[in-house]
Amino acid sequence: MTTLQDCRALDAADPLRPLRDLFTLPAGVTYLDGNSLGPLPRATAARVARTIDEEWGEGLIRSWNSAGWFEMPQRIGDRIGQLVGAKAGETVATDTTSVNLYKVLSAALSVAGSGPRVVLSERSNFPTDLYIAESLCRERGFQLVLVEPDAIEARIAEGIAVLMLTHVNYRTGAMHDMARLTALAHAHGALVVWDLAHSAGAVPVDLNGADADFAVGCGYKYLNGGPGAPAFLWVHARHASRFVQPLSGWWGHAEPFEFTPGYRPAEGVTRYLCGTQTVLGMVALDCGLDTLHATDMAALRRKSLALTDLFISLVGQRCASHGLALVTPREHAKRGSQVCLSREEGAYAIVQALIARGVIGDFRAPDILRFGFTPLYLGFEDVWNAVEHLRDVMDTREWQQPQFNRRNAVT
Amino acid sequence: MTTLQDCRALDAADPLRPLRDLFTLPAGVTYLDGNSLGPLPRATAARVARTIDEEWGEGLIRSWNSAGWFEMPQRIGDRIGQLVGAKAGETVATDTTSVNLYKVLSAALSVAGSGPRVVLSERSNFPTDLYIAESLCRERGFQLVLVEPDAIEARIAEGIAVLMLTHVNYRTGAMHDMARLTALAHAHGALVVWDLAHSAGAVPVDLNGADADFAVGCGYKYLNGGPGAPAFLWVHARHASRFVQPLSGWWGHAEPFEFTPGYRPAEGVTRYLCGTQTVLGMVALDCGLDTLHATDMAALRRKSLALTDLFISLVGQRCASHGLALVTPREHAKRGSQVCLSREEGAYAIVQALIARGVIGDFRAPDILRFGFTPLYLGFEDVWNAVEHLRDVMDTREWQQPQFNRRNAVT
Repeated sequence: MTTLQDCRALDAADPLRPLRDLFTLPAGVTYLDGNSLGPLPRATAARVARTIDEEWGEGLIRSWNSAGWFEMPQRIGDRIGQLVGAKAGETVATDTTSVNLYKVLSAALSVAGSGPRVVLSERSNFPTDLYIAESLCRERGFQLVLVEPDAIEARIAEGIAVLMLTHVNYRTGAMHDMARLTALAHAHGALVVWDLAHSAGAVPVDLNGADADFAVGCGYKYLNGGPGAPAFLWVHARHASRFVQPLSGWWGHAEPFEFTPGYRPAEGVTRYLCGTQTVLGMVALDCGLDTLHATDMAALRRKSLALTDLFISLVGQRCASHGLALVTPREHAKRGSQVCLSREEGAYAIVQALIARGVIGDFRAPDILRFGFTPLYLGFEDVWNAVEHLRDVMDTREWQQPQFNRRNAVT
Repeated sequence: MTTLQDCRALDAADPLRPLRDLFTLPAGVTYLDGNSLGPLPRATAARVARTIDEEWGEGLIRSWNSAGWFEMPQRIGDRIGQLVGAKAGETVATDTTSVNLYKVLSAALSVAGSGPRVVLSERSNFPTDLYIAESLCRERGFQLVLVEPDAIEARIAEGIAVLMLTHVNYRTGAMHDMARLTALAHAHGALVVWDLAHSAGAVPVDLNGADADFAVGCGYKYLNGGPGAPAFLWVHARHASRFVQPLSGWWGHAEPFEFTPGYRPAEGVTRYLCGTQTVLGMVALDCGLDTLHATDMAALRRKSLALTDLFISLVGQRCASHGLALVTPREHAKRGSQVCLSREEGAYAIVQALIARGVIGDFRAPDILRFGFTPLYLGFEDVWNAVEHLRDVMDTREWQQPQFNRRNAVT
């Protein structure tokens, strides 16, 4: 049996422990929802204030040049790219994940030849990805085929145009084998689009190593970029100047300030930009990336697995009789940086009761309790405390109190 | 002849003069580029800091509900809508102008029946609008026809599917008659999309009065929302639930947190949302809107016309020999809130020489000197000073100095 003392010993030996000081975390909160909205880096407020007061207030329009605003999508994109196996110049920070998915999926569909007009995805993929794919498939005369995870490989072999998957599933925390599925899709003549929303900054990703084609991802989860932070988009160098994406705004033009009436796409991934990007959002995202670049993904992954292993083990030891089923794979190679439990009854209310105690995870319909473990700021004692609260909420049936059963929107 | 004393007397009598204190303006700067990037409202820094420290830092994920983040696109959209003749619930603040144009133009094209498959616009429309239209027309089998302003009415009468115009031209400052052109297009069975980038907060607009169909616009110009602020999008109530736009992300879904795999659009303009919006950008935009709601568009228009009349008159009186041609219409009904001059030689360098003197306007290729007049924070003596600097730059040939002739990117 694991004890509180064991957890404290793990914290004492943790080389990443000092990184917690990079964040402002409210007292009394164990934050297990950094996979939905990363917490506030300590440096962000001052950096955004400087951008507002000096760059905008004093510099005004001149700051597009003097403060480097123009280059932010590429510069910050490259900093994200370093976390996911991109080479310099392959990544931009821009727009939202949904809009970026529309761009890259559209580009991928534009080369589908006479083969099967099928986009393959997973039934429990994050819905917005499916909505975007549904729209593009209808528009372009493709069929969106959704299968369970264990049926993906067989369906690829039947012939598809594009495989579109989220690398780490938002509901289950299960992680696909990116290299294997990409190679299989390529072997069958298909292109692959990866959504890294729950991967970037969470698990090691090697887009070039896997020879992927396109990727998108989120800035406000593990990248700690703040609510609604700009998302990102990656295109393999072999494709970057090959396709024109339909959101062909001036920021993707070869010469945006020549103001010519005809569209001529910029070389490379810059053609995936569209309109003017939020500078405040970019600056906050840059501060979020500083927290990840303070260490490396291998060290983060070691600790992430240790934290999720501990959580799984403690729930097994201390909450065994409460009908909580483990949804996330035990196998390390198949696990992201979150652990999901399910319970037939009360999943929503249990999450609410935990939040009221300061243990913030989230609920995902219809029956999932989701806990994100972000090694930058969480320790092993935090995991202990979270499980203790969960045990107590279950033992005392606290979750059955009416105030925890009134539904609210939650992200 | 107008004198400096006349200008000072106009300032002394100006009821909007106190509004200047709503802004932080750098010393020694006359800012005539608020039509490109509005200046910093005095309240923005503290409001954004509170959002960062309290809402994000302390509230974390809970602030989506407790701080009203979820409702921001609609709430802030309605505040913009009040400035442009929208009714409540018809406007959302979201994404960029280019992305929003893609949504509404796509919706408009989706109902074009068996009539002429033509999108009509103006050759000197802001290029990103033309790029987006070019992309959609190619995709959907439409022809994008570009004409000079004086040929628009005749071309409508020949038959088109959609008229897409920017209400106030970015290069010339010329303003279209929205009601007249909309009625003409409707009479010929076409829908109308208006880009209000240089209109919202600049001139009175009455979208419902003109019976327009769709509109988009910019948050970082006259709305003072900060660099890359969220844009906006308006759909007439008769259309709002009639079309599905292709960027069908989860924020436009009827039940985004049910996480169902099939897309079901929300009622009304909410279906024009796509992904998660920048909260910091929204909050700064909200502060920008406070400065406009401190007065009304009729008062702003009166002063705007007085400022641009004065500038035109002073340039005529004091710079007559310098080859500067007036591009902007003298007729009030055809003028936005900016004045553009052209000069065959040196337009770029003259603008740079003025900027070096603290008179910030901007250059628009190939030969335009553009000056925005924003009555919230500009006075009549500012106009006098700007023209004096312009006269001096021309009289002394200062603009011919080499440092003013090196090209930079400028917005």
